[in-house]
Order: sequence, then C-alpha cells, then structure tokens
Amino acid sequence: MTDGTNTPEAPSRRGRGRPARTEAAAGPGARERILHAAREQFAERGYDKTTMRGIARAAGVDAALVHHYFGTKDEVFAAAVEVSFEPALALAAIFGDTPPPGGPAGAPPDLEGVGERLARFYLGVWENPASRAPLLAIVRSALTNEAAAAVFRDFVLNSLLARVAERLAVPDPRLRAELAAAQMIGVTILRYVIRAEPLASADPEEVVRLVAPALQHHLTGENPAGG
Amino acid sequence: MTDGTNTPEAPSRRGRGRPARTEAAAGPGARERILHAAREQFAERGYDKTTMRGIARAAGVDAALVHHYFGTKDEVFAAAVEVSFEPALALAAIFGDTPPPGGPAGAPPDLEGVGERLARFYLGVWENPASRAPLLAIVRSALTNEAAAAVFRDFVLNSLLARVAERLAVPDPRLRAELAAAQMIGVTILRYVIRAEPLASADPEEVVRLVAPALQHHLTGENPAGG
Repeated sequence: MTDGTNTPEAPSRRGRGRPARTEAAAGPGARERILHAAREQFAERGYDKTTMRGIARAAGVDAALVHHYFGTKDEVFAAAVEVSFEPALALAAIFGDTPPPGGPAGAPPDLEGVGERLARFYLGVWENPASRAPLLAIVRSALTNEAAAAVFRDFVLNSLLARVAERLAVPDPRLRAELAAAQMIGVTILRYVIRAEPLASADPEEVVRLVAPALQHHLTGENPAGG
Repeated sequence: MTDGTNTPEAPSRRGRGRPARTEAAAGPGARERILHAAREQFAERGYDKTTMRGIARAAGVDAALVHHYFGTKDEVFAAAVEVSFEPALALAAIFGDTPPPGGPAGAPPDLEGVGERLARFYLGVWENPASRAPLLAIVRSALTNEAAAAVFRDFVLNSLLARVAERLAVPDPRLRAELAAAQMIGVTILRYVIRAEPLASADPEEVVRLVAPALQHHLTGENPAGG
C-alpha cells in the first residue's frame, strides 16, 4: 500500500494550511484508528455535533485522510455502524457457518433454535459494556437525525436483514426478519435506554428464554398459538 | 370552578410584568388547551427546548396557570404522555370492559385473541396522523433525554403496563407485558421512525396478522414453538 516515502500532500478540503498527514505519514492502522475515533465521537457527541475534523483530530490524522478512506460523514457513520454490528459474526452465530441457499455449498441453514441463538447473540453484544456505549449512540442518532436514520436503514436493510432474510424459508422473509429485529430493538429500548423494570434487571438468559419463541415464530412461521 | 369574576392576579414566577391570566380569566377548557399546546410544543421543539413559558404562550394563558395545573415541566410531559396513550381506552380495547381479577365484578378478562386486539389498537393509534406526530415526539424525547425517559418509564410502568400485567395469568406478568410492549415499540421504531421497507409500507392488517402470535405468546404463555 505504501513504499515508505511520504506521498505528495493530499489536497485539504478546508484549506487551513496545516500539514496533511497522508496515508503513508499516518502510519499503519490509520483506518482502524479513524473508525475507533469515529465510534467514540458519535457516542460522545451524537451525530449532529460530530465532524470529520473532530474525528481526524481524535485519530491523529488529517481530515483529508478521513475523506480519503470514507468519503462523507454519512459514510464514516455507516462504517462505524457496520463495525459495531459485525454482520458476518452475527450471521455465523445465528445461522452457523453454512452459506445461504443457492450459495456455493448449498446446505440449508439450521433454523431449529434460530430464535434462541439470535436472542443470545444480540443480548450478548448489548451486555458487553465496550460495545453498548457506541451502539447506544448509534441507535440514538438514528432515532433523532434523518441522515443517520437513512444510513441505519440502508445498512440494516441492505447489509444485515437482507442476509438474514435470504436464509429464511417463509413467505415475506424480509418483513419477518424486520419483525424479529423489531422485537430485539424494542427490548433494547426498554432494557438499556428507558431502563424499565423488571426487564432492565432481568437475567439475560431469562430474557433469551422469554423472547426466543417470538423470534422463532417470526423467522420460521412456527405457529405460536400452539395449534 | 369559577364565579365568572376575575380572581386576583397569580404571582408570575418570572416577573415579566405581563398581565396574569388566571384560572378564571383563562376561561373554560384552559387545562385542555394547555395540554394540547404542550403536545404541540414537545412535538415541534423536543423535550429540551420546550419551556413552560412557551407552552403557556401557545395556550394563551400565563405560565403561572401552567404551573398551577401541572407543577413542573416533567409533570406537563407526563400528562401529555397520558393523554396521548389514553390508557383507559387502550385497556378497554385490548381486554374488553371487564375489571381486573379481584376487582368488584371479578370477571376474568378475555385473553383469547388479546394479542391481535393489542396489535390492532396500537397500530390504529399510530396510523392516525393526528396522534402520530405527538407520539413520535414523545418517543424521541424519551430516547434522548434522561428526564423524559424517567417520565416515560414511570408512566409506562406504573400506569399502563402494570394495569396490563394485573390482567394476565402467567408467571412474571410484568416482564411479559414489557416484552409485548417491546415488540410494538420496535415495530414503531422500524415502521414510523426509521421507515424500513417493507415494514414501513406494509398494510396495517398484515402487520397485525404477523405480530399478533408473538404478542399472544408474551401475554398468555401460549407455546409459540407449536409444541
């Protein structure tokens, strides 16, 4: 990616005359440092008040490098969302490592117990204090800022829920994937944002046990009325 | 409530010297006008930027009268939440008009189809454009402001979910009422706030049909795994 020499100074979009720290000058891991800084900035300041310049400063790079790697603030936000949700990890935890139907191996995903695995994986991410703060910031931004909502919507739809839906064997798989997501988003809101009791203090495994049947129904169509 | 004469001027807490419009001077329906104005102010400006003075101005009364009727901004907010959710109406629509077990009549509430009735009532409120805007403002405030979250939590817990829970015949009725609420709050977020497709454009009755079994499970414990 670099021959170790300084590449020519990248054009600064703000023209403030500071020395640009370009890809080479920023050193290895600059992209990861920027993403880490972006998560922290979005978490601390919210979407509106986070700036490309502020992210660059926190990452110790020039703002031009942030533009170079990510383009716009929306795109940095999208990348921070994607890192936070780790979709590949989520899909493997929920469906196992089998590819979706029609993929190269063609093995159908294991849908037995999928509701329980989804609930356990999702709550595990939220129970981890290191991931909870940035996730909370992302959720709050998406709920109050139109641009952040659009990024969240496009990410959720195109990246995660679409990939969940293609593994389901029900009519309207995308709608059903969204209803399962709605159950978990609502649990997130009541447990971690509003902190409604007794849900806020309930043992995570108790919550898994109680929501798993609802998720299983959404994802597989198994009849929850017991009939 | 009034003999038609002007009562003595109420003390203005800000002392700006404007003529106080007290209970009598404000005329009939002042309390309802204040609540209406409060809903509009919270909807347009959000919780943080809404002031008692701004509510009073919009309602055409003195700020002292808003204090007189409601106390603090939190209490105006709580009253606006209560009006928006109309808990008595909600309970009657979901459970019928029978009182809770142990009440004077003692008839058990009808739990057959309760999930479907809850989904239909809740979506009906949100599908109504007149109620959607203030509800959205309340939800956004509760998600981003700690004081508003506390009001929402105390209202939801003490007023609505507790009354739902006492009509259920399952272990952990309060926790289960919260999980049903979580399902509907998540649907609200994805359909009306994030506007995720296909959920955002789905026919309301289709959404009712799909979420009802999950709600029925939460509220009655009927086995959603079909076993």
